[in-house]
Amino acid sequence: MLTLYGMTDSGNCYKPRLLLAKLDRDFRHVEVSSRDGGTRSPDFLAKNPNAMVPLLEFEDGQTLAESNAMLLHLAEGTRFLPVDRYQRALAYQWLFFEQYSHEPYIAVRRALLRFSERAAQATPERLAQTLERGNKALGIMNSWLEDRPFFAGETYSVADIALYAYTHVAGDGGFKLEAYPAVLAWLQRVQNDAGHVDMEWKP
Amino acid sequence: MLTLYGMTDSGNCYKPRLLLAKLDRDFRHVEVSSRDGGTRSPDFLAKNPNAMVPLLEFEDGQTLAESNAMLLHLAEGTRFLPVDRYQRALAYQWLFFEQYSHEPYIAVRRALLRFSERAAQATPERLAQTLERGNKALGIMNSWLEDRPFFAGETYSVADIALYAYTHVAGDGGFKLEAYPAVLAWLQRVQNDAGHVDMEWKP
Repeated sequence: MLTLYGMTDSGNCYKPRLLLAKLDRDFRHVEVSSRDGGTRSPDFLAKNPNAMVPLLEFEDGQTLAESNAMLLHLAEGTRFLPVDRYQRALAYQWLFFEQYSHEPYIAVRRALLRFSERAAQATPERLAQTLERGNKALGIMNSWLEDRPFFAGETYSVADIALYAYTHVAGDGGFKLEAYPAVLAWLQRVQNDAGHVDMEWKP
Repeated sequence: MLTLYGMTDSGNCYKPRLLLAKLDRDFRHVEVSSRDGGTRSPDFLAKNPNAMVPLLEFEDGQTLAESNAMLLHLAEGTRFLPVDRYQRALAYQWLFFEQYSHEPYIAVRRALLRFSERAAQATPERLAQTLERGNKALGIMNSWLEDRPFFAGETYSVADIALYAYTHVAGDGGFKLEAYPAVLAWLQRVQNDAGHVDMEWKP
């Protein structure tokens, strides 16, 4: 059985949990947190020297890091990765957008405001920068979604899973999603897709 | 013919140029720079609202952003994307590592030190943070490469292209690559792979 090391309250960790639930694949959840030193323990560093969750462990003990790499790997051959070459390329594009232009602002601002151990980093400059860049990402997403239902085009894909993870809790970071109506409508479409589970869900 | 919008002096733009050269695919290079406002012109924003290069334009006018998405798209069905499912997953893992844990420190520190318009951002704190995190990334890469020749395992892949782009010029950002002998040996292997071209190369 697959083992998934992660934190319940992390959007990055939610991504593979959501896809595994939709694929109806069994897995073991092991809670490992960056907030209590769990990701920096010698045992965990031996599994992932980058000290990050989620981490996926296969039956043979081999491991895979990076939430969006897990999505691409697990989705191969399923409805969650488009067969059409251009739509598939768009799924790739939005996965990298999520990690470079979205998560470092929208997820980080949520962490700065929500987790006491990050409070010292929540300077006015950092809060202003993450707000500005997070809103830029939301604006780009909103424009894209005005013309199509999902990020890769006509159908739900791993790109929607990746972007849903932190967008649906962006309010925790002080982002006003009501300014982005196409994003709000898309959040609803994601929730309506078959087999959806909430972030708190564990097997 | 494909059109690639980008800056000659950007590692991110070098990635698709290097793969296209190795694939012996013709393309048109159009110089668009983030340093003179080119990426923020109305014409370019209509192509990429995220105001970033590289941008790939196909014969039919459709576009693709995100350098690592281009690598995955262009490499499909070639020797640059492993067929073995686990090795392929490792290629994904290192592509996301590059964008999240490497480029924001190693490429950004190079830009802070090299480009006059970034000098105001080169505060002591920012220089210290990018140095520490960039060295962390190089240390993780070095440990991995002590046990295998390339990032996805036995063979050269898109993961090597992505990580080579800014690692081979990390010295411009003040990183001392001689502290990472396995990385230095890997840089040589990348340069020795058939069809290698330098960052300055354009068609």
